[in-house]
Amino acid sequence: MITSKDAIKFIFQNITKFGDEKINTLDAVGKTLREPIQAERDQPPFDRVTMDGIAINFDSIKQNNRNFLVSKTQFAGDSQCTLEKKNSCVEIMTGAVLPMNTNCIIPIEQLVKKDKSYIVNQHYQPKKYQYIHRQGSDHKFNTLIFDIGHKIKTIDISAILSCNKENVSVNIDPKICVISTGNELVAAGKKILPHQIRMSNGPAILSMLKNHNYKNCEYKHLKDDKRIQYEHIEKSLNSSDIIILSGGVSMGKADYIPHVLEELGVKNIFHKIRQRPGKPMWFGVGPEDQLVFALPGNPVSTITCCRHYVIPALNLACGQKNIIDEFVQLQKNITFKPALTYLLPVKITNSKNGILEANPIETNTSGDFTTLIDTDGYIELTSNKEEFNKSEILNFYRW
Amino acid sequence: MITSKDAIKFIFQNITKFGDEKINTLDAVGKTLREPIQAERDQPPFDRVTMDGIAINFDSIKQNNRNFLVSKTQFAGDSQCTLEKKNSCVEIMTGAVLPMNTNCIIPIEQLVKKDKSYIVNQHYQPKKYQYIHRQGSDHKFNTLIFDIGHKIKTIDISAILSCNKENVSVNIDPKICVISTGNELVAAGKKILPHQIRMSNGPAILSMLKNHNYKNCEYKHLKDDKRIQYEHIEKSLNSSDIIILSGGVSMGKADYIPHVLEELGVKNIFHKIRQRPGKPMWFGVGPEDQLVFALPGNPVSTITCCRHYVIPALNLACGQKNIIDEFVQLQKNITFKPALTYLLPVKITNSKNGILEANPIETNTSGDFTTLIDTDGYIELTSNKEEFNKSEILNFYRW
Repeated sequence: MITSKDAIKFIFQNITKFGDEKINTLDAVGKTLREPIQAERDQPPFDRVTMDGIAINFDSIKQNNRNFLVSKTQFAGDSQCTLEKKNSCVEIMTGAVLPMNTNCIIPIEQLVKKDKSYIVNQHYQPKKYQYIHRQGSDHKFNTLIFDIGHKIKTIDISAILSCNKENVSVNIDPKICVISTGNELVAAGKKILPHQIRMSNGPAILSMLKNHNYKNCEYKHLKDDKRIQYEHIEKSLNSSDIIILSGGVSMGKADYIPHVLEELGVKNIFHKIRQRPGKPMWFGVGPEDQLVFALPGNPVSTITCCRHYVIPALNLACGQKNIIDEFVQLQKNITFKPALTYLLPVKITNSKNGILEANPIETNTSGDFTTLIDTDGYIELTSNKEEFNKSEILNFYRW
Repeated sequence: MITSKDAIKFIFQNITKFGDEKINTLDAVGKTLREPIQAERDQPPFDRVTMDGIAINFDSIKQNNRNFLVSKTQFAGDSQCTLEKKNSCVEIMTGAVLPMNTNCIIPIEQLVKKDKSYIVNQHYQPKKYQYIHRQGSDHKFNTLIFDIGHKIKTIDISAILSCNKENVSVNIDPKICVISTGNELVAAGKKILPHQIRMSNGPAILSMLKNHNYKNCEYKHLKDDKRIQYEHIEKSLNSSDIIILSGGVSMGKADYIPHVLEELGVKNIFHKIRQRPGKPMWFGVGPEDQLVFALPGNPVSTITCCRHYVIPALNLACGQKNIIDEFVQLQKNITFKPALTYLLPVKITNSKNGILEANPIETNTSGDFTTLIDTDGYIELTSNKEEFNKSEILNFYRW
């Protein structure tokens, strides 16, 4: 049986990068950039006034002139005017271009209007270029703002638009087919018998995919019937880039999935990982390089394997480069005997000390998914040791 | 001028809770629950088998029987069968109901099949009720799983569906109108003149709203023209629950927004906050209790005020109760003289010590939004002191 680390390595080795497409920048949050974004112009593109007031020539006030006749008014959006007479001023608004021959802004709060002039408050000492956001001081024309592989965040949108990119090239949203299996499962809203349980794995996977910005998903549920599974998975292989199955991969007599997949020409890359939960996970590659993840059907296993293997694989196939690891502090001693990777759900607290504290929430069994609602993700307890001490720093994976 | 704390207080005092609606549970992530969710049945609803193998009566193996004739086979999804003869077994699959008269599961890995019987590995010591997820051990019928006011997370979806809630009652998505103003602004993709700048505030607000799950938004941009502004804001007041403006609220001659709003019957609750950035912010309440946020037009001010005042107001109006504060550790000494609240953008690092480290990214001016792309949010430096020391723990707001 392979280790969790090797499982990730084998998955990553089999990834084909998704294609790219141009989309509206406003819809690009969560996508991965497939083109570099460079500054269209200097930023600011001109000496930009940052206060309402008057623009003057600094020499004039330095020579003790405090009374400035208004020669012009310049609003944001007006083209640049010129101050003709050194001792006069241009009435000016925030966001306007600094007028030619001026180099100082006196804010309105320091001024008194008198007829057609402004008198500067006698105690006020202006500075040259104060309240002027100088041309190119944020960045110069052609500066690289975002590189290929950057995962676009909310805060990036205005910067991308300011580079005159109304549309951007990003990864294509891969076509994902989520398939759950199991005779015992009945969807919410449908009549249920005592020996049946509510269908939850498929929706849980869909919801996690959506949360990680993979939205081009279809979902089907199949009975534990080899012929039905063959037929439907064959169709899905023809129409999808990624297939995520849950259930049917263990040792049971109705666990047909690995067999069905192999019959369909999906190459078995591995079956079973030295981990808890999710040991029976199966992974393979279809005839047209489709990635096929067959996750164990226990709800905690499904959701953990989806987050630990499927999401990073999708992110890599998008070309994401700015993936950031998170580290948390374990809040109690944990002893875990078998030499397996243990992916342990935790609730994170951050109670006024700045530390991300990981409070283990041990599930009753890997079927106990209700306990997960109190958790934020899971920590990785590696297989190379048995004792994990309170205060130890561990890798954290947010759901 | 009021303090930042008071600004929040005054906004919160004027909030009317949004209505509620039933939506498909799969679409409910990010919404706030408006009904309690209770367990439909015990969870698990029956003694649930967690391994593939055989179900036996523990007394039989205790009395040294290690050879079990298969009397039946029970799959997940089959109704409960009964073990008739104590020394025989039921072949059983993960997820199946525990057969009547059995109380122990021997996993397949510990068995050898011989004709119609299974022989248990001679060294294997089973335990009573091992590999059985007992009925009701996660929770009992009618247990409160989520209360009203819970903001629904990805991980909650399967638990809600398992409570047989195909649809859930959540807050209505409020109708939000985002309006930017300014003659100098030109949308990405359009021809630009040297004295003009790219339009970015409106899209930045829209993008932040979407990120916080407010998606029912329209956007318009208006020139600095009082008549045009009056006309369009009047229309928006008639069609929206929330109006978010950017620009036109300062001391400039073209800053008509507060005046226009008051003419339209929007009650001025406050204008200006003792804070940096975003001092000129205006807030009021429309004739039909519409909340009107008029944010300063400098990009850093717009985005910070939107996150600090608008988003919490919307969350409160949704009825959200599980809002969690974040705390981070300041990474350098900061002296900030005026007695203002300083909302300072930071980049968060979490480099292998479990601490959320806040690295201040000082913007060039409040027009310098490109710097923000390196930040994760901002910290709040309160107005009651001037010195903030390295290692101090501060409130953090994620964009």
